Amino acid sequence: MNFTGFTMVELITTKRDGDALPPDALRWIISEYTADRIPDYQMSAFLMAIVFNGMSSTELGAWTDAMLHSGDVLDLSAVTKPKIDKHSTGGVGDKISIPLAPIVAACGIAVPMMSGRGLGHTGGTLDKLESIKGFSTTIDPSDFADQLDDLGVAMVGQSETLVPADRRIYALRDATGTVPSVPLISSSIMSKKLAEDLDGLLLDVKVGSGAFMKTVEEATTLAETMVGIGERHGTPVTALLTNMSQPLGRAVGNANEIAESIDVLRGGGPEDIRRLTVRFAVEMLLLAGERDVDTANARVTEAIDSGAAFEVMVALVQRQGGDPAVIENTDLLPSAAHEHVLAAPRSGVVTRCDAYEIGVAGVRLGAGRATKKDDVDPAVGFLIEAKVGDVIEKGEPLALIAYNDESKLHSAIEALAGAWDIASDVGAAPAPTEGLILGEIRS
Amino acid sequence: MNFTGFTMVELITTKRDGDALPPDALRWIISEYTADRIPDYQMSAFLMAIVFNGMSSTELGAWTDAMLHSGDVLDLSAVTKPKIDKHSTGGVGDKISIPLAPIVAACGIAVPMMSGRGLGHTGGTLDKLESIKGFSTTIDPSDFADQLDDLGVAMVGQSETLVPADRRIYALRDATGTVPSVPLISSSIMSKKLAEDLDGLLLDVKVGSGAFMKTVEEATTLAETMVGIGERHGTPVTALLTNMSQPLGRAVGNANEIAESIDVLRGGGPEDIRRLTVRFAVEMLLLAGERDVDTANARVTEAIDSGAAFEVMVALVQRQGGDPAVIENTDLLPSAAHEHVLAAPRSGVVTRCDAYEIGVAGVRLGAGRATKKDDVDPAVGFLIEAKVGDVIEKGEPLALIAYNDESKLHSAIEALAGAWDIASDVGAAPAPTEGLILGEIRS
Repeated sequence: MNFTGFTMVELITTKRDGDALPPDALRWIISEYTADRIPDYQMSAFLMAIVFNGMSSTELGAWTDAMLHSGDVLDLSAVTKPKIDKHSTGGVGDKISIPLAPIVAACGIAVPMMSGRGLGHTGGTLDKLESIKGFSTTIDPSDFADQLDDLGVAMVGQSETLVPADRRIYALRDATGTVPSVPLISSSIMSKKLAEDLDGLLLDVKVGSGAFMKTVEEATTLAETMVGIGERHGTPVTALLTNMSQPLGRAVGNANEIAESIDVLRGGGPEDIRRLTVRFAVEMLLLAGERDVDTANARVTEAIDSGAAFEVMVALVQRQGGDPAVIENTDLLPSAAHEHVLAAPRSGVVTRCDAYEIGVAGVRLGAGRATKKDDVDPAVGFLIEAKVGDVIEKGEPLALIAYNDESKLHSAIEALAGAWDIASDVGAAPAPTEGLILGEIRS
Repeated sequence: MNFTGFTMVELITTKRDGDALPPDALRWIISEYTADRIPDYQMSAFLMAIVFNGMSSTELGAWTDAMLHSGDVLDLSAVTKPKIDKHSTGGVGDKISIPLAPIVAACGIAVPMMSGRGLGHTGGTLDKLESIKGFSTTIDPSDFADQLDDLGVAMVGQSETLVPADRRIYALRDATGTVPSVPLISSSIMSKKLAEDLDGLLLDVKVGSGAFMKTVEEATTLAETMVGIGERHGTPVTALLTNMSQPLGRAVGNANEIAESIDVLRGGGPEDIRRLTVRFAVEMLLLAGERDVDTANARVTEAIDSGAAFEVMVALVQRQGGDPAVIENTDLLPSAAHEHVLAAPRSGVVTRCDAYEIGVAGVRLGAGRATKKDDVDPAVGFLIEAKVGDVIEKGEPLALIAYNDESKLHSAIEALAGAWDIASDVGAAPAPTEGLILGEIRS
C-alpha cells in the first residue's frame, strides 16, 4: 500500500479522543505493523485506546478486512461442496468440534476446520486431537482442498501464512492488558475465519464462569458484532450463545475428551454434548442451504445412526497420519498412571459445578497450559461425576482425577475443591441440561 | 527494590479497569522500566490506561516520588540561602525566567534553574541563553552548589543523571499519543523540580491558545494537582495561571528575547513582561520566607532599579562562559541578514494576536524546533508590533520579521498571516495588559 500522510501518533490521538478513523488509515496501520514499520509500543497504545473507545462498524469492517488480507487467503474454489466452519470462543470440556465436523462432513458439507491450542483455563481442539497417536494437525496446503473434496473434513492448526497480523496483534494484546475488547476479539476471530474462504460460519459464543463473556448481554454484543462483520463481508454467520457455567459433558482433559467425542459419534455420550452437537450440525446444514429444519435434523441423526459420521472420523484420522485403531478402541488412548476420587463433602443437590475453577484445576494437573510454552499431558484429566441438578450422597465422587504427578494432583485439588456447591434443599437446582442455548443471532 | 509478585500485565489490567494501584506497585513499575525490565510496549499501554482513568492523589504521590528517585537527587544542603525555582508550562515569547532569576538572586535567594529546550510552538530558555556567545548550559555538578552560594543563580539544562525515568517516559509519551494527561504532566514536571532539592517552587501555568491548557478550568486542575504533589512532598508550591492567548512581550525568537530580557533588567521592556517578572519575583520572595508583600515588592524594585539584578546577569554570563559584553550591549547578539515587515491588511483594533499561530510561524522561520533533532537559528524571529487592544492603520506593521532564508520566510508568513484579527469597531478589544494573571493556587 502506498498511503502517505498518516503518522501513527496522530492516528493514536484520533482514536484516543474518540473520533472515528478512516478505513484507509486502519488499513495503513495493519499493513505497516505487519511490515514492522510501526513499533509495538505505538500499536499497544493504539490497542488500549480501542479498548476504551471501541470502533464503529465501518472501522471494524476495514480493520478486519485489512487483517484478513495481511497474509495469504485460502482459495477453496476447487471444492465443490458448500464450505462451512464452526468456531467456539472457548470453554471447559468443549470437545464439540471433534464429533461435529465428521457428522457435518457425512452430510455432504466441507468443513475446513482450523483450530487453536488451549491456553489458560480453556482447552484446545489441536491438543485433544494430538492425543491420537500419530495424528498430525499440519496438512500441506496443496492437499487441503483435495482432502476437503474427498473426505469433507480437515482438522488443522491455523496456517502460519494466514492472517499474520492477528498472530502479532494477539501476542501483543496478551502482554499489554488489551485482550478484553469486543472489536479486537471480533476482528481476531472473524479475520481468521473469513480467510478460510467459507460459504457460512457457525459461531458458538460461550457465556458463563468458564467463558470470556460472563453475561448474556456481553455475549450478545460480541455475537452481534461478529455477525455484522460477516454480513459486511458477504458471508452468512449464525451465532449461538451457549451456557459455559459448568463444563460440557463429563470429560475435561485431552485423551478423555477424544473418547467422549467418539461416544457421541457412536450415538452415545453425555446428553448436553449430544444435544449441542446435533443442534450445531443442524445449523451448519441450514447455513449450507438446507431450508427445512426437520430435514436437517433427520440428515444429522441419520449420519450418526448409520455410522457414516463415525466412518468419516476413522478416515480423517487415517488421512492425517493417526492410528485409526484408537478410534475403534478408545482404550488405546494415552492413560494416566493413577486415579484419585474427589468425594462429596456432604449430601444434597449440586447447585454449582464451576467451569472456570475446573478449567484452572485442569491446567494445574497438566491437561492445559498456563503459558504458550507449556507442554500438555494428554493422559491426565477429570471425569465430572456430579453436575448441576444431580443429587449426591456424602462420600460419592464429584470427580475422578486421572493423574501422573502427585504434586500436580495436590495443586489441582486445591483449585477443584471449591468448584462445587451442594445445597441440602434438593429443589434448589435447575435440571441439568436446562438453558444449554441462551440465544441466537443470525445474519 | 525487591518487590515480587507483580506482573506488568496484571497492573495494566488493574489500571485499565479503573482500580487504584498500591504505591509499591507504582514504584515497582518505575524502577523496572528504568532498569529496562519492562518493555516499552507494556509501558505505553499502561500510560494510555492512565490517560483514560487518571490517578488518585495517593497513586500520583507514589508515582512522582518513584520518578524523582529513579536517578540522582541534588543535594544542595551546602547552599545556605533558601532555594526557590520557577517552572513555566511553556509559551510563546516567554522569556521571563531570564530576567527573573537574576532579580531574585539579587534579593539573596538561590535559584537553581534547570530549564528545557523549545519544542513545537513553544520556545525554550536554554535555546535563548545559547544565543549569548560562549554561554554554556552545562555546569560541573560539583560547581553547581558553589555557584548558587556565590552568585545565587545557575541556569542549566536538566542533568542527565537526574530523573532518568522522566526522560524515558516522556520520549515514549511523545511517540504514543499519551502526552495530554494531568497526572502524567504533573508527575513529569514535579519529579524534575523536586529532584532539585528546593525550599519552594513557583509554577507558571499558561492558559490559552499558545499553551497546552486551553481553558482556566483545565489549567486549574493541573495547577491544583502539582501543588498537591508539592504538599505531599513537603515542598511549598505557588501556582499562578497566566494568559498565553497572545505572545508575551514583543520579541519571539532567541537572541531578540535575550535583548528584551536585558531591557527588563535595565528597568525597561514591554509592560506585560515587566509586570509578570516583578510579580513572579515577589512570589518567589514570599516562598523564601518574606512575609510582607509590600516589602517583597520594594526589594524586587530595588534589585532592578539599583542595577544589582543587571550585575548578577553579567556575572552569571561570565561564570557560565558567555561574553558579558553581549549583555552590556545587546547589539552584539546574533542578528539576521534580512528584515521583512508584515503589514496590517486593514485599519481597526486588534482583537486577536494568536500565540499558537505565531509560535508555529516561529518554528517555520527556524527560531524553534518541529522535532528534537532540529537546530535553532538564534538570529531569526519576530518583533510583534500590534497586540490585542492596539489601534492600527492599514499598512502599519503587525510584526517585523528577521530572517536568513527566504523560503522559510514565506513558509512562516503563511502561518503568521492568520494570527491577527482586526475589528473596525475600536471598542471591540480589551486593554492590552488586562487579564495577565488568571488565577493563583497555593499550598
